[in-house]
Amino acid sequence: MMDFERERDAYAHWRVEFDAPIARLIMDVDPDGGAIGDYELKLNSYDIGVDIELAAIIRRIRFEHPEIGCVVLEGAISGTFCAGANIRMLAMAPHGHKINFCKFTNETRLEIEEASANSGLRFLAAINGACSGGGYELAISCDHLILIDDRSTAVSLPEVPLLGVMPGTGGLTRVTDKRGVRRDRADVFATKTEGVAGAEALEWKLVDELAKPSTFDQSVLDRATQMAETSDRNPDDAPLVIPPLDRELSDDAVSYRYVTAQIERGTRSVTITIAASADDDWPLRSALELDDLLLHLRFNEPEIGTILMKTVGSADDVMVHDARLSNPSSHAERETTLLWARVLSRLDLMARSLFAVIDPASCFVSILAEVALAADRTYMLDGVFEDEDHPLPAATMMLSELSLGAMPMANGLTRMQSRLWLDDEGLEAALTMVGKPVEAAQAVRLGMATINPDDLDWEDEIRIAIEERATYSPDALTGMEANHRFCGPETMATKIFGRLSAWQNWIFYRPNASSETGSLRSYGSGSRGDFDLKRT
Amino acid sequence: MMDFERERDAYAHWRVEFDAPIARLIMDVDPDGGAIGDYELKLNSYDIGVDIELAAIIRRIRFEHPEIGCVVLEGAISGTFCAGANIRMLAMAPHGHKINFCKFTNETRLEIEEASANSGLRFLAAINGACSGGGYELAISCDHLILIDDRSTAVSLPEVPLLGVMPGTGGLTRVTDKRGVRRDRADVFATKTEGVAGAEALEWKLVDELAKPSTFDQSVLDRATQMAETSDRNPDDAPLVIPPLDRELSDDAVSYRYVTAQIERGTRSVTITIAASADDDWPLRSALELDDLLLHLRFNEPEIGTILMKTVGSADDVMVHDARLSNPSSHAERETTLLWARVLSRLDLMARSLFAVIDPASCFVSILAEVALAADRTYMLDGVFEDEDHPLPAATMMLSELSLGAMPMANGLTRMQSRLWLDDEGLEAALTMVGKPVEAAQAVRLGMATINPDDLDWEDEIRIAIEERATYSPDALTGMEANHRFCGPETMATKIFGRLSAWQNWIFYRPNASSETGSLRSYGSGSRGDFDLKRT
Repeated sequence: MMDFERERDAYAHWRVEFDAPIARLIMDVDPDGGAIGDYELKLNSYDIGVDIELAAIIRRIRFEHPEIGCVVLEGAISGTFCAGANIRMLAMAPHGHKINFCKFTNETRLEIEEASANSGLRFLAAINGACSGGGYELAISCDHLILIDDRSTAVSLPEVPLLGVMPGTGGLTRVTDKRGVRRDRADVFATKTEGVAGAEALEWKLVDELAKPSTFDQSVLDRATQMAETSDRNPDDAPLVIPPLDRELSDDAVSYRYVTAQIERGTRSVTITIAASADDDWPLRSALELDDLLLHLRFNEPEIGTILMKTVGSADDVMVHDARLSNPSSHAERETTLLWARVLSRLDLMARSLFAVIDPASCFVSILAEVALAADRTYMLDGVFEDEDHPLPAATMMLSELSLGAMPMANGLTRMQSRLWLDDEGLEAALTMVGKPVEAAQAVRLGMATINPDDLDWEDEIRIAIEERATYSPDALTGMEANHRFCGPETMATKIFGRLSAWQNWIFYRPNASSETGSLRSYGSGSRGDFDLKRT
Repeated sequence: MMDFERERDAYAHWRVEFDAPIARLIMDVDPDGGAIGDYELKLNSYDIGVDIELAAIIRRIRFEHPEIGCVVLEGAISGTFCAGANIRMLAMAPHGHKINFCKFTNETRLEIEEASANSGLRFLAAINGACSGGGYELAISCDHLILIDDRSTAVSLPEVPLLGVMPGTGGLTRVTDKRGVRRDRADVFATKTEGVAGAEALEWKLVDELAKPSTFDQSVLDRATQMAETSDRNPDDAPLVIPPLDRELSDDAVSYRYVTAQIERGTRSVTITIAASADDDWPLRSALELDDLLLHLRFNEPEIGTILMKTVGSADDVMVHDARLSNPSSHAERETTLLWARVLSRLDLMARSLFAVIDPASCFVSILAEVALAADRTYMLDGVFEDEDHPLPAATMMLSELSLGAMPMANGLTRMQSRLWLDDEGLEAALTMVGKPVEAAQAVRLGMATINPDDLDWEDEIRIAIEERATYSPDALTGMEANHRFCGPETMATKIFGRLSAWQNWIFYRPNASSETGSLRSYGSGSRGDFDLKRT
């Protein structure tokens, strides 16, 4: 079972040294600490375990250390920054793990970029040694790359020539679209096993700065100090402390304080319920819990194909937090809002069918309205449950200011913009309802819900939809949903998760890469994989 | 062997009726006319043969019939518009054919949209009967859809629920991004076997107009007449007549009048040479020849992994045509320019490595400069071939006005914009060279070429690059090149060819769809494919 929570300061693969306003994040991978099997994590190569720690550390620095303005990433061993994803691990990992591994590492890289863009936390890659594949992809998620200029140390993306797969963590996309490397040079770079070093790396924009070995440390310190000065973080702010999750797991259920999941194996579905609360810790905890649950489902429950999103509780309890989430005024509030944006983005990228289910007990308002809007389709009860003795009033949804831009999807649009793409009039009509409860029929008209069965049809309609979904090809559903969710403009993130990941999915699946004699397993053996040479 | 040329008026699957300004394009598929095997093309279902005819007909109407302002697509059989791609064909086709089939049909749909956007040719889908899958995808490539409102006829995309694959011809993308169907409704639509009919189809924006059976023909005629009135085509213009290709084929060579191809099986490469000519027919013929050759390579030479693009002849001969291509003033000139844009777009989408090779005998100027700029990398000789008795002057390239917007890539950018993405200064510098010959070293600096070996290194450098390319995984190269070529913004076309096609590639490859017991082969048997249920 894959677990995503990591204890503070008990990391196996990283060291963190704080010297405000700079934190040094030193990659020092334990070769014997592989997470999913028996392989050696040589030369700062990584697997999912290393990346889970990285994600936990970055979130902690970001949330718990407002005094830090710049994070320096470096390798512990002289001559090695990071060798990228471990090949033996990739060779032995099942297809699903490879894909989930890439998706998670991509999300962590995006979280680095989001922390820079929104949280004033700058990232400096101090490339003090070999930096290849995923190592270079980690480096280019940073704001600034300093490469040691020692006539040998190079940056490289050797996946295509050496491994017969693509760089899987956004490398191809960031090289052209973030760094502006010319695409013909990108072609040379990504097919050059030994990579590019020194002045050429700088000229090609693969790195931002060179430093001689004798002055490397000082250059890094100077640059980090300068970068920290551009941060808007305030050392006097109260940290946002990440609480332990206190998760309870059983065969078919997961429960946290505010979030619970109940699995129904027969229909391969899971019902996620988020309970509202007016307690102060609700916004942070519920986001962390949902985040952890989504990762649990991805890695540990691959056959659960449909996620039903429910909420329960009082809309007022959710609205208690709305103003602080919409207009955060402290470090802790800002990070909580940004965390919700990240978790919702993770939800958008679940390769599972997402149905929201809204009934009178629900409270899909404020931030929870976004949970509903992330769904592929939404069922909303029209009217009340007639046979209850004291039926609750009819279900409503309510948008708040949070739906107007604070929670962007990967395509850069709000979830309402994505739903009403090319329908400006419809969008305007929907947005006039910000702050007003919307009942089922109107929600369907406005694009906030999809189907509004009444009491009589409610259970059957949802049950049939879940059962039907379970009969469809999971592959076809994954492809279809990945296409429907992100309409309109694209961004680096949609390219990474749409175009690049889809190719990666195919390449990893093909015998050329993954068979017994494929390129991943024959790596290092001196013999190249036997390729099916046909192209289209 | 797949052949893409079709004789005028000898179509097996379509009838064309001209009544200016309207042409009726009547789909009447010969059930026994399957192109790649023994399957029955029932209910106006199609295979590559049907689509090759469609592409040929549309191009002929567009080029040869300036008197036509609106094309009406309809089914010959009452009750059937088009049932989409033939399932038996998909079930038996090898993976590569499925992918190439989808790519070609996608390009034909885009050519319909381009003809509407740029050539004033409007398209009306007169949906007089069942319209499902690829049939609906064909319809939504048209400007306007009229659905017969007979209480039964529906439009549908039943691929996911019925076939376990995705709609492969842009359906998912066009539904949301072209037609503005809400994504939650798109989810319902694309999982609803029976589709959506009547008022609901109209409300969901799946069609643009309904017409009762009794008035259907008149409604179509009225609308077509109205649409033709919006056309800027001039019936008095001289038609652009498409000449026969006169192709000569041998085992390792293909030759046309201006374009030749020489295959070298050892390195799995082909050298395409375009010869310049001042003859009037050069711009049209060379484009048609290159187009045909690219399709030939895709379908008939799947193991040829690298394409070397060369040109030969006098730059002056190419420049003779430049003004007419840049500023077309007649129907024929306009269509020739647009044809080049389409052919270059087809070149961009070759799933093969593209190298341009520029030496003193080359004439990469004007429209041929775009051929070089389409390459993944460009080798340009620095200086002259020293050992020749009368060496030609050093190679030059020259951009013309044609490179400033007339030949957009799928991402909507020019090829120079794509190469110098995020480098406005560099782009400005390069564009100051429009109309001026650029030698090798400068071309590399300006982003027009990649590598400028001198005489001494020239042959080795290119040979090694070709040999290396041949050792790499074709899958990894395809994925890498698909990511590098289209930087920056995305469009419906990049989504279709990037995101959607990549997913399709994976889905078609998986046993869930394509094994002996997969969904494609078990279609119609009553038993569903045995799915690997894991998702990521």
